[in-house]
Amino acid sequence: MGTAAVATAKEVFDLLHHDLLAIEREFGRDAVSTVAAITEITGYLRESGGKRLRPSLLLLACRSLGYSGSAMHRLGAVVEMVHTATLVHDDIIDGAELRRGRPSPNTTWGNSRCVLAGDWLYMQAFRVALNERNFRVLELLIGLTQVMVEGELLQAEKLGRPVSESEYNELIYRKTACLFEVSMRLGAVLAGADRLTEECLAEYGHALGLAFQVVDDVLDLTSEEAILGKPVASDLREGKATLALVHALAHATAEEGEAILQVLADGAFTQFRYQDVLTILDRHGSIDFAMDVARKHAERARRSLDCLPESEYKRALLWVPDFVVNREK
Amino acid sequence: MGTAAVATAKEVFDLLHHDLLAIEREFGRDAVSTVAAITEITGYLRESGGKRLRPSLLLLACRSLGYSGSAMHRLGAVVEMVHTATLVHDDIIDGAELRRGRPSPNTTWGNSRCVLAGDWLYMQAFRVALNERNFRVLELLIGLTQVMVEGELLQAEKLGRPVSESEYNELIYRKTACLFEVSMRLGAVLAGADRLTEECLAEYGHALGLAFQVVDDVLDLTSEEAILGKPVASDLREGKATLALVHALAHATAEEGEAILQVLADGAFTQFRYQDVLTILDRHGSIDFAMDVARKHAERARRSLDCLPESEYKRALLWVPDFVVNREK
Repeated sequence: MGTAAVATAKEVFDLLHHDLLAIEREFGRDAVSTVAAITEITGYLRESGGKRLRPSLLLLACRSLGYSGSAMHRLGAVVEMVHTATLVHDDIIDGAELRRGRPSPNTTWGNSRCVLAGDWLYMQAFRVALNERNFRVLELLIGLTQVMVEGELLQAEKLGRPVSESEYNELIYRKTACLFEVSMRLGAVLAGADRLTEECLAEYGHALGLAFQVVDDVLDLTSEEAILGKPVASDLREGKATLALVHALAHATAEEGEAILQVLADGAFTQFRYQDVLTILDRHGSIDFAMDVARKHAERARRSLDCLPESEYKRALLWVPDFVVNREK
Repeated sequence: MGTAAVATAKEVFDLLHHDLLAIEREFGRDAVSTVAAITEITGYLRESGGKRLRPSLLLLACRSLGYSGSAMHRLGAVVEMVHTATLVHDDIIDGAELRRGRPSPNTTWGNSRCVLAGDWLYMQAFRVALNERNFRVLELLIGLTQVMVEGELLQAEKLGRPVSESEYNELIYRKTACLFEVSMRLGAVLAGADRLTEECLAEYGHALGLAFQVVDDVLDLTSEEAILGKPVASDLREGKATLALVHALAHATAEEGEAILQVLADGAFTQFRYQDVLTILDRHGSIDFAMDVARKHAERARRSLDCLPESEYKRALLWVPDFVVNREK
């Protein structure tokens, strides 16, 4: 596939500009309740930005198949609401203090209100989706949220302990790739795509989601707080083993392995420094390994688009994996 | 309406025995996940009993209209799952330590797991309901959960402060009566009832639910821990003003009013004893007032059944308000 077939960031931005504005309006209308606390919390999260990657995928899936009805704006808002609901509950569970460079909602509104605001957002997402009167849409969304919630519980069971590569893959599928996949599937469903086309787009979302989360986990280790909008090495501080760590553990000396396991178990840099861990990862090329895995997922995502007819939307979809792999936050 | 038209407890129990067993089996099948923590938490809650009042209402609504299909067992399990999900999240929010005489799940599994287990139960309820392929069923359930979640948030806003009688009524509608109402409506929907009949049954559920919660709140003030399965006066300890308190505040002397407001604001019996509050309530007949209100709701529930044809199921529905008002826990 020549690079000429791939769009630029500017092209993609221009291409989706009006659709994304329509989704923001929809999200803004949906996330309003007669109960002030809900409107405040959801408004706070809505305004804190986020890349709107999931709605963008849904839009591109629709438009690449020639669909341009307003249901894609409504369901675009729905996938962003589901995403936002998971963030609210995850921040409570992780005891997070920062999200996108601002205090996470639990620090401002307390855990109780945030449990309920997250519940409400899930319900609101389902309610808006229900208006489409499409059982398949509901099935995808309800199945998705269960996979994600179960994933969070699996993750909680594994905190402080090493995981295998396949366990890691399952965790990031549930955490991220599943929602990417469903966003693409919803686009296919709205466009009335045949099952084969839907599976191609699902494969794209799945592979892209894995790439996204592997890179997210690498950035958590290698970036800076000012760029991430939250403390660096948050995963280690929560006792979460990510791909570079899994790789390092498989290649480390006994002494190095002990150090990594100790940091995981402590969920803190008390006995070893953050720099000590980075040195071990560096020595075994573990960050490079993880980035190679991400690039392979990205390539698999691109290849899965062969089923699509040529269009500027397909060009945009081809660009997204590059963006995901090369991003800085 | 003569008493001959009203069933006895034994008759109602025998009448629903097989249907309730079918619902238990359904609930047992539904509340299982590949993630162990979910199956453990939901199993714990399922086995801790509970009166299964909501599924019983759904069954009686169905059968009083001549419906006896298996969907009533599936949706019976659904309303109990929704109820259970709200209990799990409420116990986190209230910081409860006991539920039905046993440690509340958050004390055993921690808040994080319980947030997620509650999420999962909501989703599972929707997933099972989705299988009925009936948009109206989904609309009722999703709307219901939002009303309940918003109610919990409204309640949180009012902790430590007095409320008006109409605010109290809104809170208990959202907390309890709405689910009673929806249980009755779902029965009507399954039975294919006309809109007028559905509204009669909805009115019954609504009034019965108000009666139930008013009595629940009275029992919280007047019963004993051994009977309630949780500490007496939990509401006051959480800063919740219930109907007897609302009444007392409207009739109390300035000094008595100060005492009640202080207990509410403290959410504890530090400056005044529990017995002091009871004495004030007693002096103004506030418990009797609340029980009178409950009896009026119960009477309204019974009257709303005039639309139903005579049957043993109608007789059972006529008995439930008596049971609700005269129960000891």
